[in-house]
This record gives sequence, structure tokens and C-alpha cells, in this order.
Amino acid sequence: MTPRNPDFAQAVRASFGRQGAMAHLGTRLVRVEPGLCVLEQPFGPPVAQQQGLFHGGMIAAVVDVAGGYAALSMAEAGQEALTVEYKLSFLSPARGELLVATGRVLRAGRTLIVTRIDAEVLGDGQMKLCATALQTIMPVVPFADRSPA
Amino acid sequence: MTPRNPDFAQAVRASFGRQGAMAHLGTRLVRVEPGLCVLEQPFGPPVAQQQGLFHGGMIAAVVDVAGGYAALSMAEAGQEALTVEYKLSFLSPARGELLVATGRVLRAGRTLIVTRIDAEVLGDGQMKLCATALQTIMPVVPFADRSPA
Amino acid sequence: MTPRNPDFAQAVRASFGRQGAMAHLGTRLVRVEPGLCVLEQPFGPPVAQQQGLFHGGMIAAVVDVAGGYAALSMAEAGQEALTVEYKLSFLSPARGELLVATGRVLRAGRTLIVTRIDAEVLGDGQMKLCATALQTIMPVVPFADRSPA
Amino acid sequence: MTPRNPDFAQAVRASFGRQGAMAHLGTRLVRVEPGLCVLEQPFGPPVAQQQGLFHGGMIAAVVDVAGGYAALSMAEAGQEALTVEYKLSFLSPARGELLVATGRVLRAGRTLIVTRIDAEVLGDGQMKLCATALQTIMPVVPFADRSPA
Repeated sequence: MTPRNPDFAQAVRASFGRQGAMAHLGTRLVRVEPGLCVLEQPFGPPVAQQQGLFHGGMIAAVVDVAGGYAALSMAEAGQEALTVEYKLSFLSPARGELLVATGRVLRAGRTLIVTRIDAEVLGDGQMKLCATALQTIMPVVPFADRSPA
Repeated sequence: MTPRNPDFAQAVRASFGRQGAMAHLGTRLVRVEPGLCVLEQPFGPPVAQQQGLFHGGMIAAVVDVAGGYAALSMAEAGQEALTVEYKLSFLSPARGELLVATGRVLRAGRTLIVTRIDAEVLGDGQMKLCATALQTIMPVVPFADRSPA
Repeated sequence: MTPRNPDFAQAVRASFGRQGAMAHLGTRLVRVEPGLCVLEQPFGPPVAQQQGLFHGGMIAAVVDVAGGYAALSMAEAGQEALTVEYKLSFLSPARGELLVATGRVLRAGRTLIVTRIDAEVLGDGQMKLCATALQTIMPVVPFADRSPA
Repeated sequence: MTPRNPDFAQAVRASFGRQGAMAHLGTRLVRVEPGLCVLEQPFGPPVAQQQGLFHGGMIAAVVDVAGGYAALSMAEAGQEALTVEYKLSFLSPARGELLVATGRVLRAGRTLIVTRIDAEVLGDGQMKLCATALQTIMPVVPFADRSPA
């Protein structure tokens, strides 16, 4: 995949750094390539549910962000990634110390970018697929930068 | 709709009370009826993104829980609601002081329960639909209560 | 809802009339309003599966078209409705003589239109909800009418 | 993947052979392995839309069936595959002479089986991904074989 923005990696890292919610959860951006983004989420109280698994809603949030930044790596300079919709299927209980969400761009159009995201959990030394998603992203110029027209 | 568990409202409230993640976000359970659950989420730092809107991932989490408890109201005594999958479409920017997520059961089978969830935002004295979802729930006996077989 | 094209009903009917696949199945367009479209599909061999129910794939096709034309009623003159994605949940066996698919626009943006579609079956004198869907539509100018730029 | 039914391939082929709708469209079952099913759909009038592409609804139908039979290859003897829900994203115009839909099982539970389906089009000597889907299947004993209880 050929990125439209030569500084795509810097754009992704800068946008991720502004996400207060991710900082609060302790999510880490570990890899960015054209059409690819990998996030890691350590297990801990803010992302746990009552039975000691990763909380489904928090998995959904990390998955959404991984897909959004995979898409942003293929957007133009100055754009942000707006989630239009996504669908998430849970495959197995998310028990482990680390959640790894890998977003991949399937199609990078100018108006819409489609991504697939796989979420794996590392536990007992093994990686296990615990959720997978399909997502539609619209690359947009953020509100504050838009001209009055 | 006729609930299978006459104490459905108490079962929903007890399960909700055990959700640490919901307590942390300040989510409130405001209404439970057979096949219906309404949650309210006040705006604030834990659910905000950088532009002062409700964070998409947090909307997704509240929507998931609203649908799950609508489903649980139609499950049998002793069951919990396990999310199989859901699909969420974002309709408009979620700007306002209160998010209201209403989950409704469309079909209550013994094996699977299908729900629809609408998320509205109250801002400037008006309610506006900001997201809608379809969800599949499996009613299950929680791990700890399962027999060894 | 206020249509952008005053001749929206004529635009929908003309486009539907060009759909060979719908003619082949015997699908009828029975109602068009701003943001609404109702299709009827009589039961018969081309839409049946082996157990005498409506075929799931054929339900999906009719649902897709109902949502697309609900969206088209809110598009500009000269546009067609391109399906970006949809998600369909099956709720009950589709047994009966008539399938009625009702598409409703939830949000009509210039770039994307989001619809909800309910499919009911008429059998034994009763209407029963058998499937429901969420769909994203992109209004586009058809290929043949596009300028070379 | 280890199939539960040693005669899985025969079960898939027999069930596919009973699908009148597939025979009518000219769909071919070209490959069955544990957790995998590949269907081929030649282009022609029953699957065309007005601009000479594969019809979206017909792509959806073939995709649904490919996922269902991938799932059936992992079900028990005597079961059929019931589609609970699926979500389909369209990635590019489906122009070409052959549609190839590949269904793969992501998780094979006893109650639910989750599949991913990719649909490619062969045109101008190239394969191009035109749609992708996530699907939930419930393996069931067909109605006619169920005991009165």
C-alpha cells in the first residue's frame, strides 16, 4: 500500500498522543505501517470486568482505535479518522495479561476506508484470537480546521 | 413480552451493580422492564474525546451494556448475558451533557436474544439520535456457577 | 424529512424499474415517501429454500434494495444509491405468502445515508418480524454519467 | 481444525445439492475442507445488475452460503447451518466473469460457529477482493428431523 501522506507515521502517533481516553487506559501504540496499526493493552482494573477477563466494551474501544489508525495511515495529511460504523464478533473469553489489536486496511478509498481488526490475548504464553471486527472509516478534516464554507 | 424470571428487574440491577467498569464511568441504570433497559451516562472526562464529544468507544461500551441488560430481563433466573456480536452505526456527533442508551429486545429465544439499541444525546434541551446498534446476546450460566460437566 | 429532489418518488420508481433482478423475483415497489420505501415479495420458487421458507439470501437481497431506495428518496436528483455495507439479523423462520421489507432513513447526510430495514412475513393472517438490518448507503452519480475528471 | 463429522465433505455436498436457489444461479461448490468452503459463481443474467456488474444482493447470497457451508464442515453429523446474522462490506465494483467466495471458520463452538468470508472477482486475468463478511452460524438439527419435544 502506498500512503498518501509521506509523514503518515508521525500523523498517527501525534493523533494517538492526543487521545486522553487511551492514555487513561494505558493503551500503547506499538507499530504503524502503511495500512497497518498495532495497539497493545495491558490487563488491569480500568479494562477488567467482574470475572477477571478483559471487558467487552473496552475490547471494542481498543479495536475501534486500532482500525481507525490503520485507516489514518492511508489518509491525506491533515485528516482525522471518523468511525462510520463497525461490527465486532467475540470469539473466545479474553483472559490474559495483554490484548493485542491489529488493524489492517482492506480498501483505502478517498471517501471511505474499510478495515479489518483482529484482537488477540496473550495468556499462558500463547496468543489466542478473542475478537474480530469489520469497520468503515471516513477520513475527514477535523472541525476546528474546517473553513467556514 | 413475558419475562421467564419473575425477579428479572432485581437480577438486572444486581448484575449491573457488580460491573466495576460502569461504576467507574458513572453510568446509571434508570429503567428496566421486560425486554427493555435504559442507561444514562453523564458527560465527563472518562467518556470524553479530544474535541469535547462523547468518545465513540465509550458510546459503544454503554450501548453494549444497555442491550445486554435488555436481554437479561428476558433470560432465566441465574443467567448472565454474554455478547456474541454487535454492529454499531454512528449517526451524528455526540455533543451534550447526557447520553441515553435504550436497549430493546427484538426476539427472545432460549439460546439467543437479539436486541436493538438507540443512543441519544441530550444537548441544548434537545434529544438527538447519535448511534444505533444491533446485537446478539447468548444467555449463559456464569462460569463460577457451572457444574463440572 | 425534506427530500433534496422534489421528484424523488419518480426517481425511485424509475431506478427500481431498471432492476432486472427485482423483476425476475417478482418484487413490487408499493410505497415511497421521503426517507421510506416499502417492497413486497410474494412467495414462490425463485425465493424459496428447501423447507418451504423464504430463502435467507433472497431476504437479504430484498432488504438491501428496500434500504437503498429509502436512501435514494433523500438523495439529490441524478444520483443512485450504492450499498457500502449492511448487517442483517434473522429473527424467526420466514414462513408465509408475502415478505414486506420496510426501509427507513435514520440519517440523511450528503456523503452517507444510514437506514434501518425491517422484514416482516405475512402468514396465517399475521405479520411477523423475521429479519432486521442496518445499512450504510453512499449516494453517487452513476458511472455512465460521470465527467472524465 | 478437526471436524466433528468424519463425513463432513459428503454432508456439505449433499446439503448444497438440495439448494434449489443455488442450482438456479449456477453456483458451484469447488472445495470443502474442515473449516473451509469455496464457491464459484459464473457471471450471467440471474446475478447481474443493470451496469453489467455482479448484483450486490446476489453477492450477499453466495457469501452467506459459502460461510454457512464452511461452518457445516465443522458441525456434527445430521446438523444443518442456520444463519443467525451477517455483516457484509463491499470493497470494489464486482466486474468480471467469475465470483469466488471463500468461507473460513474462525471459531467452531458447539452452539455457534463464527466465519469470515471473502468474495473475489476474476476479471482481466486478475483476482480482486470485492466484498468481505463476518457471519454467525447456529448448527441445528433440521425441523423435519426434530423430535416432538
